[in-house]
Amino acid sequence: MKMPEQSRLRLIASCPERIGIVARVATFLAERGASITEANQYQDSKSQTFFMRSEFDIDGGAGILAKLEAEFKPLADELQMDWRLADANSRQRVVMLVSKFDHCLAYMLHRRKVGDMAFDVPCVISNHEDLRSLVEWYGIPYHYVPVPKDPEGKQAALEKTAQIISEAQPDTIVLARYMQIFPPWLCERYLHRVINIHHSFLPSFVGAKPYHQAEVRGVKLIGATCHYVTEDLDAGPIIEQDVARIGHSDTTKDMIRLGKDVENVVLSRGLRCHLEDRVLVHGNKTILFSK
Amino acid sequence: MKMPEQSRLRLIASCPERIGIVARVATFLAERGASITEANQYQDSKSQTFFMRSEFDIDGGAGILAKLEAEFKPLADELQMDWRLADANSRQRVVMLVSKFDHCLAYMLHRRKVGDMAFDVPCVISNHEDLRSLVEWYGIPYHYVPVPKDPEGKQAALEKTAQIISEAQPDTIVLARYMQIFPPWLCERYLHRVINIHHSFLPSFVGAKPYHQAEVRGVKLIGATCHYVTEDLDAGPIIEQDVARIGHSDTTKDMIRLGKDVENVVLSRGLRCHLEDRVLVHGNKTILFSK
Amino acid sequence: MKMPEQSRLRLIASCPERIGIVARVATFLAERGASITEANQYQDSKSQTFFMRSEFDIDGGAGILAKLEAEFKPLADELQMDWRLADANSRQRVVMLVSKFDHCLAYMLHRRKVGDMAFDVPCVISNHEDLRSLVEWYGIPYHYVPVPKDPEGKQAALEKTAQIISEAQPDTIVLARYMQIFPPWLCERYLHRVINIHHSFLPSFVGAKPYHQAEVRGVKLIGATCHYVTEDLDAGPIIEQDVARIGHSDTTKDMIRLGKDVENVVLSRGLRCHLEDRVLVHGNKTILFSK
Amino acid sequence: MKMPEQSRLRLIASCPERIGIVARVATFLAERGASITEANQYQDSKSQTFFMRSEFDIDGGAGILAKLEAEFKPLADELQMDWRLADANSRQRVVMLVSKFDHCLAYMLHRRKVGDMAFDVPCVISNHEDLRSLVEWYGIPYHYVPVPKDPEGKQAALEKTAQIISEAQPDTIVLARYMQIFPPWLCERYLHRVINIHHSFLPSFVGAKPYHQAEVRGVKLIGATCHYVTEDLDAGPIIEQDVARIGHSDTTKDMIRLGKDVENVVLSRGLRCHLEDRVLVHGNKTILFSK
Repeated sequence: MKMPEQSRLRLIASCPERIGIVARVATFLAERGASITEANQYQDSKSQTFFMRSEFDIDGGAGILAKLEAEFKPLADELQMDWRLADANSRQRVVMLVSKFDHCLAYMLHRRKVGDMAFDVPCVISNHEDLRSLVEWYGIPYHYVPVPKDPEGKQAALEKTAQIISEAQPDTIVLARYMQIFPPWLCERYLHRVINIHHSFLPSFVGAKPYHQAEVRGVKLIGATCHYVTEDLDAGPIIEQDVARIGHSDTTKDMIRLGKDVENVVLSRGLRCHLEDRVLVHGNKTILFSK
Repeated sequence: MKMPEQSRLRLIASCPERIGIVARVATFLAERGASITEANQYQDSKSQTFFMRSEFDIDGGAGILAKLEAEFKPLADELQMDWRLADANSRQRVVMLVSKFDHCLAYMLHRRKVGDMAFDVPCVISNHEDLRSLVEWYGIPYHYVPVPKDPEGKQAALEKTAQIISEAQPDTIVLARYMQIFPPWLCERYLHRVINIHHSFLPSFVGAKPYHQAEVRGVKLIGATCHYVTEDLDAGPIIEQDVARIGHSDTTKDMIRLGKDVENVVLSRGLRCHLEDRVLVHGNKTILFSK
Repeated sequence: MKMPEQSRLRLIASCPERIGIVARVATFLAERGASITEANQYQDSKSQTFFMRSEFDIDGGAGILAKLEAEFKPLADELQMDWRLADANSRQRVVMLVSKFDHCLAYMLHRRKVGDMAFDVPCVISNHEDLRSLVEWYGIPYHYVPVPKDPEGKQAALEKTAQIISEAQPDTIVLARYMQIFPPWLCERYLHRVINIHHSFLPSFVGAKPYHQAEVRGVKLIGATCHYVTEDLDAGPIIEQDVARIGHSDTTKDMIRLGKDVENVVLSRGLRCHLEDRVLVHGNKTILFSK
Repeated sequence: MKMPEQSRLRLIASCPERIGIVARVATFLAERGASITEANQYQDSKSQTFFMRSEFDIDGGAGILAKLEAEFKPLADELQMDWRLADANSRQRVVMLVSKFDHCLAYMLHRRKVGDMAFDVPCVISNHEDLRSLVEWYGIPYHYVPVPKDPEGKQAALEKTAQIISEAQPDTIVLARYMQIFPPWLCERYLHRVINIHHSFLPSFVGAKPYHQAEVRGVKLIGATCHYVTEDLDAGPIIEQDVARIGHSDTTKDMIRLGKDVENVVLSRGLRCHLEDRVLVHGNKTILFSK
């Protein structure tokens, strides 16, 4: 006799508030033998919207996800749900874009290698050659796409970048200190799947050189913000933020160094939540069903 | 025509894991027209125990809680649940015990007065007279029960304390820097309803004078721990903890001063979670369904 | 035989960088028998400015400060110093201005009463009557100066406020959530002696209703900033900042409540540093010789 | 004409308290044209001990340090000083010992490579082979010294380790998660020059498996402690500590992962302070003249 294979899946959904949503969904799952391991529900009273995330174990191997999707669709339609099912054990494909700063990239590739984070990296794209050896040491393809300053050259570079991304078939795109504007049409194509790390406590110090701005203003804390990229630069839904203390003798260079730890921790926390389907976007804000 | 009265209730429960718990409970609620505003479920895989907390709006006024309790009992029995229903808008009765340090008491009474925390205080009990005027300024009865050092006198004082507590019919008891041992038989009587604030980051510095111990050891952070009181001194389930940074020039007196803020914040966070039924005790640990 | 009286004084100074400043000043102090208990020196390399703070014990009672000032002046002049001597044990006169929120005021008055902070409060001024009973319970005069909306009425109110302040002869003025613009001419009169608490992590959310702005933006941390008031609203030199974590279910009302602890801690830390002469203003920034 | 070469040096000293220490030392420096860039003095009133650290620019190249040492010695002797002069721009030789966990080692080697930390690593010693490729990728010699369990084998391994260390002529030794007892005679030989990172908030959870202990106790924060290694295991002078928040669903494995960031930050902060001569040991505590 063979043990039936078991899968751990996640259902993430939002829909207009009404009575019985949890009952309907949980009954659907129970009827199929699903054992809930962790779940959260939250109703936003202003917009009358209901948000939920359920993680559950269910009998069935490779085909169970598609089967469940087909079976759930009528109920989801009836409840007017924005929803997805995900396999907790499948690894997302994450394309990373970088420029010259290597700390966020090095941090994530190292954490991934030792098993602290689970995702695949089909490729890394950069507008500089600097980080090629680091990336290739991890056995990951490195695409160098320089971005000229003239509009036509820039446009061509963006299109090439978009093509490489497209061929990599990413689930998620991470801008790990990519110092180029990510064009609106690309944001739109991968809506709420492009994650950026901004090296300030947004909305403070939007735009370029936030540590320089921080030094000029004389703040006593510096920060980092992980957010989804949208058309509005540095204004997308915030996933995670944190800060670190600085003093009067810390120069811009010191801040850059001290900021690296905050950036690493904030980006990896944010990316982890995203990969575990814990982030639900609601207008310009996020619902975070954190562990 | 009259609008039906609406209540916000909470169902908190734990039970052995099995398939369909959420479905059964959520269906029970939906059938009675309950609209879930916030809910959490968590399965502890080691002990195969399921924990859940649901907050919901339901039609019905004063009698709805008792009615629902009666109706839910058969299902709870079947699922072998340890459970309770609570009215989110009813105010718990919180008896406070203090000695000479007034900061935690002053903080909570002030927060309560301005509407930041919602609970009633039938009385404050102290083994000193020092804080009478503060307490009475808030219009709260103050019971002075000195605790002598001789065993018989101490026993008599404890019994008198227990009697005052009993007459106050508390839902919760807070030891807001009460420098006397709370006897095991009283802990047992109000199991997981007696909350203590210990002025260290437990398990560091158990017992007396933790700031003095912290100075001797030369730690760089001091902390505070809010926990349920059990037979084992300073070893009960931890609800909340936090720390504050200190330096080499901070004396024990400085630590006492700096520690006050941490104690206040940790105790008030812990008490708030407790009052909102967000803390589920599991063995010697807590499940915290924090907001 | 009588023990000579001893005083603890502080010398705070800044001057153009040159070789031998510490040697000259320390020799001046040593020649007068001063025993340094804590001292800090810092050279800002960009502006070539030298900053120093020395705390020392010296024989001599009430007259020693004035005597030392007279003796130090020639050296200070020679070194082109911006300087002051202060008695560590004299209590500063701190006038407080408030509107309706009482937490910062209540916190400081309580901390002062129990001996955690040492300063005198000649009076509290408010544009509302709400906090009179609290203030008078502490035995402190309360001045109610309503501020009308029409320009003339507002101007008259400001002048009355200025007059009350002037008569109180304050060393320091604290705006403990005073919801009125403090006029430039008053800032100028008490330059770097007016301290404000802003309920955001500046430069985020300048101006009115920062918690409301924070909710709209969906930040994951809220903050507070203690700064000197200058002509530019919310743009003066920052003394201290800190943050607290919030979540998606926290409303503006929750933020206001959670923010109170941060505001209290940040304002009291900032005021303490100011009262201990640990804050040296340098352009629009502060040098903080923290303990 | 040639610009005279300039050096940045540091003088770190402690001595019995007496009047005029700063005057004597600062005058000594001024007479030699030293320009102080940053300095701190602190008197411990209990032990009547004076601590100081001065960083200064002075004309002179390679020979200036030895010259100044010779000239300062008579004054230091007279003041009964425990002192040292250090060249701020010379790189310390740091030998690192590791076992199997690579995060602290990887973090420091990466930070060193990109220029965030300045020190040399003559070699890495490990009782396992696991981290050889990582270390050799950085061009650093890797010594594999297995430590058997039998007393004689262990003793031989320790002696071999001691010999390798000795030949490397280290200024500082870092135990970057080295899971072997560092023998008292080696601690003694490199007193206050051996730095350990312990993965708990000491004195909580001394000894083995602190994250496991933390999970059993149900704490809400985990921590890390950077300290000098002394004879007493996990009881040496603490240099730096910090904590991170955990929740009820975090397993020991999660804590290990979350703890890595705290360990990295705490160890690198502690090591940086040590390398910048900001840590003065006083009995079993440290004076930290932090930036």
